[in-house]
Amino acid sequence: MSILYDERVDGVLPKVDKSALLAELREQLPDMDVLHTQEDLKPYECDGLSAYTTTPMLVVLPERIEQVERLLKLCYQRNVPVVARGAGTGLSGGALPLEQGILLVMARFKHIIEVNPEGRYARVQPGVRNLAISQAAAPYDLYYAPDPSSQIACSIGGNVAENAGGVHCLKYGLTVHNLLKVEILTVEGERMTLGSDALDSPGFDLLALFTGSEGMLGIITEVTVKLLPKPQVAKVLLASFDSVEKAGRAVGEIIAAGIIPGGLEMMDNLAIRAAEDFIHAGYPVDAEAILLCELDGVEADVHDECDRVKVVLIQAGATEVRLARDEAERVKFWAGRKNAFPAVGRLSPDYYCMDGTIPRRELPGVLKGISDLSEEFGLRVANVFHAGDGNMHPLILFDANQPGELDRAETLGGKILELCVKVGGSITGEHGVGREKINQMCSQFNSDELILFHAVKAAFDPSGLLNPGKNIPTLHRCAEFGSMHVHHGKLPFPELERF
Amino acid sequence: MSILYDERVDGVLPKVDKSALLAELREQLPDMDVLHTQEDLKPYECDGLSAYTTTPMLVVLPERIEQVERLLKLCYQRNVPVVARGAGTGLSGGALPLEQGILLVMARFKHIIEVNPEGRYARVQPGVRNLAISQAAAPYDLYYAPDPSSQIACSIGGNVAENAGGVHCLKYGLTVHNLLKVEILTVEGERMTLGSDALDSPGFDLLALFTGSEGMLGIITEVTVKLLPKPQVAKVLLASFDSVEKAGRAVGEIIAAGIIPGGLEMMDNLAIRAAEDFIHAGYPVDAEAILLCELDGVEADVHDECDRVKVVLIQAGATEVRLARDEAERVKFWAGRKNAFPAVGRLSPDYYCMDGTIPRRELPGVLKGISDLSEEFGLRVANVFHAGDGNMHPLILFDANQPGELDRAETLGGKILELCVKVGGSITGEHGVGREKINQMCSQFNSDELILFHAVKAAFDPSGLLNPGKNIPTLHRCAEFGSMHVHHGKLPFPELERF
Repeated sequence: MSILYDERVDGVLPKVDKSALLAELREQLPDMDVLHTQEDLKPYECDGLSAYTTTPMLVVLPERIEQVERLLKLCYQRNVPVVARGAGTGLSGGALPLEQGILLVMARFKHIIEVNPEGRYARVQPGVRNLAISQAAAPYDLYYAPDPSSQIACSIGGNVAENAGGVHCLKYGLTVHNLLKVEILTVEGERMTLGSDALDSPGFDLLALFTGSEGMLGIITEVTVKLLPKPQVAKVLLASFDSVEKAGRAVGEIIAAGIIPGGLEMMDNLAIRAAEDFIHAGYPVDAEAILLCELDGVEADVHDECDRVKVVLIQAGATEVRLARDEAERVKFWAGRKNAFPAVGRLSPDYYCMDGTIPRRELPGVLKGISDLSEEFGLRVANVFHAGDGNMHPLILFDANQPGELDRAETLGGKILELCVKVGGSITGEHGVGREKINQMCSQFNSDELILFHAVKAAFDPSGLLNPGKNIPTLHRCAEFGSMHVHHGKLPFPELERF
Repeated sequence: MSILYDERVDGVLPKVDKSALLAELREQLPDMDVLHTQEDLKPYECDGLSAYTTTPMLVVLPERIEQVERLLKLCYQRNVPVVARGAGTGLSGGALPLEQGILLVMARFKHIIEVNPEGRYARVQPGVRNLAISQAAAPYDLYYAPDPSSQIACSIGGNVAENAGGVHCLKYGLTVHNLLKVEILTVEGERMTLGSDALDSPGFDLLALFTGSEGMLGIITEVTVKLLPKPQVAKVLLASFDSVEKAGRAVGEIIAAGIIPGGLEMMDNLAIRAAEDFIHAGYPVDAEAILLCELDGVEADVHDECDRVKVVLIQAGATEVRLARDEAERVKFWAGRKNAFPAVGRLSPDYYCMDGTIPRRELPGVLKGISDLSEEFGLRVANVFHAGDGNMHPLILFDANQPGELDRAETLGGKILELCVKVGGSITGEHGVGREKINQMCSQFNSDELILFHAVKAAFDPSGLLNPGKNIPTLHRCAEFGSMHVHHGKLPFPELERF
């Protein structure tokens, strides 16, 4: 393996001849849509993370798996990199295209193949929207649990590629915990099944390895997800606190009391005020922080848990605890939370949404640390996040038109992620690494770990053609980023020559 | 990679000089126990699967991680294979030693480092017994959910290596679903952390990949497991059926009704009679099959679910449904199930315990198929198994002293596993592949898939020194086993030259 994928992006590989490739695609796959004009390519230059844009060389829109198969075989023969894309809602630039590569859009694979209530699974094509699965399962009182905020638009293939999370992941797990089987095409265009319809699959757990691999190990052609029974009832408690640290501590104490809420979300004063101004959810605008704690299950169980959570919240110093009195108020409480990002967006010309995860016990300290950093950098930070699973989303407010503010916001964001890593957390919770966090991976992992990642990548894709330049940084990149220890101008790692 | 690990077992590698290695170990690790006499080695010649035995070259019993680290570095330098072993309760020969290798016994690492109720995890050394974790967590009303039958003896390191299951896995998942983090030593003796204390870890999911990898990717030195709150109450229903197929169908219907029992076990008439004779559990000896369905959670919830399950069972054709009237009867119902294997052992001089997994919906058909095979081979088969997750344990009764019976039992066992694979299941549920099922892996996976497994193995252990000859068969072996399609004496796979 002499040339590595990250280097492709930096232009080490000989250029691909666009018109020759286009001609070959038209000849070999005459019935597959191929976009090639600047005008047609423009809409595909970024995903949900608009900070990074690249015009793809070509965009292909297959409608049948056989087309994807032939396309991959052709690209493999011609040494052309391939970036797969679902609905394009990703927030870390995982589907950012390449100037010298093909953008493979899987959005037309929208067929729900089977919903099986007895086996409690659904078998779907990768372009099926997350919410559409739950809608198809609803007649059987089943649903698909992972619920990213973008669930109305994002597709299951992208969810698998990014191991997507959501409000309910605390109780019901991430995408990886809700999968049975994935059909893929390898970089060589060979069909392969990862996982099985049965409980467990022998050999190495390639399904879990593949989940969250950001399009680097293969192309998803079919997904079998687990379905769960819909909870009979859901109730939500709103607790007010006079400090964010106290609210942070209360989170750990609810969990320590043996309760797993369906959702456990936190908002600080800046976010509360913004959401209240926007949505009129009935939030206490004087509170320094609120917790929204949803309990779901059967009626009696939920009733019992509500009582227990109330006691914990009051002992943890909540100044007020309110149970949403009816379904309308419950929906309103959640509407405030779900619209908190656009609400905060009204406070400032720009904001930068971070995504980091920390162990729950570290919440009070990290919230204090973020507040100190906010003061130090002179930028407001709003906190709205999945507190129960320690997945933070600090929103850094800034004005890109003020000279230096964007830089300051980015530096502050980096510091917050470093703080997460320092306390045993990670640089991403549910948004993935993609292109955005590739440098931060150098802080998260040491060179042995990165080498192992590259070796695993090479086991699936030795040619490095699948989504090069994302997710796993080269050691060269880390050395340049400065996170690795370079002594006296010399790299200490002989492995750098390999990767 | 010229020499592959399976070939080492067949003696391709130059022999290790035992006395030179022993002398070096004593010099470099003077305070580590090393066993080398035939008498001392004897107890280590097999694990829980006594059908396969090999005398290890040397057995080492380290007490500190530093010793394991130095041992691995030495073995790596000297090209000596290493097989790790925990409590030795494994049922597929995963810890079967090598004549030309070191058996690394991790049983002395018995320290529970931390039980953290707020973070709801326990951090333990690999030799800690499964049940000891729950005992240490009990003061906080927490427990560790996966409960293999051997939980009183088996250790958590082995549980991770085999991705162990148990009665409660239907509701609470396998080992892989209950882990946060594993500390390992690589084949080169380097420390590495897989997973994190936080919800999710960026990069590829190496923790899940490692779980169930049967000691082939690294040596476990520390495990952080998730703890769950203990259910307030548990009740068990006993349902009788006049056919195994009806009982099999009822299993799928309970799940389809949106209920996830804490345990859902099935026994057929042969097993019922054996258990009743032995334990006097109060089972209906005339029933063709029974289901034991345990519901756990808070009082009201469990009460409600019991009512719903009763309705489903009666609709599915149960001739009788009994709720254990008190805790004593509940324990008795389970005692019958838990002692069913030794009870069946009283019926016949020998029995062969199979372990296969199938999709739940296939239960009625596969049970019928097993019954037909039993008749065809003239051998009785008792069925006692985790019905809820489709994990079957057919017990084939035979007499090894009758000429040909052992062979017939093994052939019948192979046919049952083939049936499992045919309906979309797998050749193992919770016992692993180890040495026992290595040939069956050739039926389960095609050559592309096996090549990928080998490439993943090589990413962690290019030298192939860790537990060679287990879990993943070489393509050579599969060709010899005859499960791969060999046409006109020629192997169709050019990759065979590589693996």
